[in-house]
Amino acid sequence: MKKNAIVGQSGGPTAVINASLYGVVYEALNREDVFGNVYGMINGIEGFLHDQLMDMKPLDTSGELELIKTTPGSYLGSCRYKLPEDLSDTVYPKLFEKFEKYNIGYFFYIGGNDSMDTVSKLSRYAASINSDIRFMGLPKTIDNDLVLTDHTPGFGSAAKYVASTVREIAIDASVYDNKQSVTIVEIMGRHAGWLTAASALARKFKNDNPVLIYLPEVAFDQDAFIEKIKSSLETTSNLVVCISEGIHTADGTFICELGSEVGVDTFGHKMLTGSGKYLENLVKERLGVKVRSVELNVSQRCSSAMLSKTDQKEAIASGSFGVTAAIKGETGKMVAFKRQSPLTLDADYVLNYATEDVNEICNKEKTVPLEWISEDGSDVTEAFLAYARPLVRGNVLVPTDEDDLPKFAYRK
Amino acid sequence: MKKNAIVGQSGGPTAVINASLYGVVYEALNREDVFGNVYGMINGIEGFLHDQLMDMKPLDTSGELELIKTTPGSYLGSCRYKLPEDLSDTVYPKLFEKFEKYNIGYFFYIGGNDSMDTVSKLSRYAASINSDIRFMGLPKTIDNDLVLTDHTPGFGSAAKYVASTVREIAIDASVYDNKQSVTIVEIMGRHAGWLTAASALARKFKNDNPVLIYLPEVAFDQDAFIEKIKSSLETTSNLVVCISEGIHTADGTFICELGSEVGVDTFGHKMLTGSGKYLENLVKERLGVKVRSVELNVSQRCSSAMLSKTDQKEAIASGSFGVTAAIKGETGKMVAFKRQSPLTLDADYVLNYATEDVNEICNKEKTVPLEWISEDGSDVTEAFLAYARPLVRGNVLVPTDEDDLPKFAYRK
Repeated sequence: MKKNAIVGQSGGPTAVINASLYGVVYEALNREDVFGNVYGMINGIEGFLHDQLMDMKPLDTSGELELIKTTPGSYLGSCRYKLPEDLSDTVYPKLFEKFEKYNIGYFFYIGGNDSMDTVSKLSRYAASINSDIRFMGLPKTIDNDLVLTDHTPGFGSAAKYVASTVREIAIDASVYDNKQSVTIVEIMGRHAGWLTAASALARKFKNDNPVLIYLPEVAFDQDAFIEKIKSSLETTSNLVVCISEGIHTADGTFICELGSEVGVDTFGHKMLTGSGKYLENLVKERLGVKVRSVELNVSQRCSSAMLSKTDQKEAIASGSFGVTAAIKGETGKMVAFKRQSPLTLDADYVLNYATEDVNEICNKEKTVPLEWISEDGSDVTEAFLAYARPLVRGNVLVPTDEDDLPKFAYRK
Repeated sequence: MKKNAIVGQSGGPTAVINASLYGVVYEALNREDVFGNVYGMINGIEGFLHDQLMDMKPLDTSGELELIKTTPGSYLGSCRYKLPEDLSDTVYPKLFEKFEKYNIGYFFYIGGNDSMDTVSKLSRYAASINSDIRFMGLPKTIDNDLVLTDHTPGFGSAAKYVASTVREIAIDASVYDNKQSVTIVEIMGRHAGWLTAASALARKFKNDNPVLIYLPEVAFDQDAFIEKIKSSLETTSNLVVCISEGIHTADGTFICELGSEVGVDTFGHKMLTGSGKYLENLVKERLGVKVRSVELNVSQRCSSAMLSKTDQKEAIASGSFGVTAAIKGETGKMVAFKRQSPLTLDADYVLNYATEDVNEICNKEKTVPLEWISEDGSDVTEAFLAYARPLVRGNVLVPTDEDDLPKFAYRK
């Protein structure tokens, strides 16, 4: 009797997490020689524990699967459920009973650090009970912070959204160019500055906006920041500055925490202003120039308007590669991207796929290498640009509805 | 000797204010029988006062003019300069000396209320001194608040940005659909709720998100709002609510002002939270559910990702129509849109162009008709949908650079 495959999504959504799902499902449905049914778990492992799963084959027949490729968010729903560290916890036999109930032989999980932790624990538990179910992780995160992979699906499209939006904000900031102004753009990334660094792609010429870029990899000095703004305004009257939400002082205090020390709202709650808002007030206070802050917010992870074709293609390929690897017998692994081309601006980008031990990936974080950040911490180097540029390339035409608005797939 | 034409842009930018500029310049350059040079004023009337102008013809030769069509922001730069009410002020003879210096016979000004005020004053001053310079206004504003025109260029693309982004945010909000949540989206519009109303286009079926929509046209009641959220959560567990930045209580107090009563930041400044942030705290306090607020911010007026073809086409047509009208001898007018088709969902959209007396337009504000707002003030009616849907239709392919990021025109 053929075994069934099951696939789930976990953690925060991205623009291409469903492209990865497409890759898994498309490949699995094409391997009828191996798989019985192909199931999707609703709301990840947490939903599966409550028998929430769906048959994926009808999506292929109805054409819905094609639409999934360009739909942002997690089609199957997500969860933030962390499996217990203790493998003798009762949840494990409970889960493996469910696997048996549904005749699962292959388990695919699309997500970031925490999801890889789930894959790690399940595969280790399987080994301990001599189960032959195969567990495969598929990388996903706009934060690009997974180790042992060149980059992660989701980063390229988010980076493209950031670069194009910052380019547009710079235009918006320049319309009154007879007056000095500062625009601070706050970009997602608590510990890793990859996405903020991508704002450098917005530049069209040397010294173009964003003139200053601050990542959480380097301690943030408020006085040096103000001095840098001051000197930059001498050459760029409408200055755009990009900052990671996670920038912090040398002692580890997040900049956004500085702002909340004093404010209390009408309801007596501590007011949590973002890092951008705090720095807006700081610049206003110290320099007296016109200043505003813009938080790019959730569109960074759910906009379909700036899908990178490269990102989408690689997400799909990671899904199908994961299926093939699992068929070959691999388990406890994550699909990883291996760049074959050198990190130079003129190199032709070549990517290979491989698998890596998921235990070496989960609960670790890859940050931007310090040598890719300028000495004074206010910019990224050319090496970063060479790294990031191929990842945003290629455009995707998103299907539209009768109003010419983007048309998405929805789970019924 | 042939007279020259001059065109300027004023007020906040939109995604198609440059399409209007394209329309004026393209048409004017094609009428060599009428016009000598075609000039652009840098930073509007304020820059013109300082002799900041450029010859537009080379842009046509270089191909830059084509690129302007899809470039957001004000290519020529903008200003917020208000001419004095008193027509005997010295600035008027000064301006008309400049007009003479540059042999200007035709003056085109692209903007909103304030810009139409400029056109009004200049044309009235011209009449008082028997000048035969013709002054023509071209409408522009994402706020859609100009009277005597069915709608304004800039609104359709901003509405499309709002509708598609809210649709994506609703997807993002639904990924953990086993848990209740409220997402409050704050949309631009201080006095007119047109853009917020456009969020209704995000819906794909009855009772879809955004379930609740609040406009500044109707007084906002906090208790009724909380009750509405509570009852809506019973049928929609991941609720998306759209609000105008300008919603206010019955006594005229902006909701965003309520939040700033208490908070004081580290620098002793009153903390100005937005209306969304205030309501986020209110919902948290009263209902204890998971809640977040998202401010759509400047991308509403500067994103090129969601250009409406209809909007772009009409912006271009308004520019060329204005040129033709001025040639025919009209002055002190604004180009206006006259919808010929009925406001029903199945009507084929037909639009005509006309001119209206600019004095009847400037300093007035068109808000959403109360009959287009549901009785309890938490939604818009089908009539609004019939009005708005044609305006967002059609997609525009924006040229891209070598990284496949949007490629824009820049003034050298």
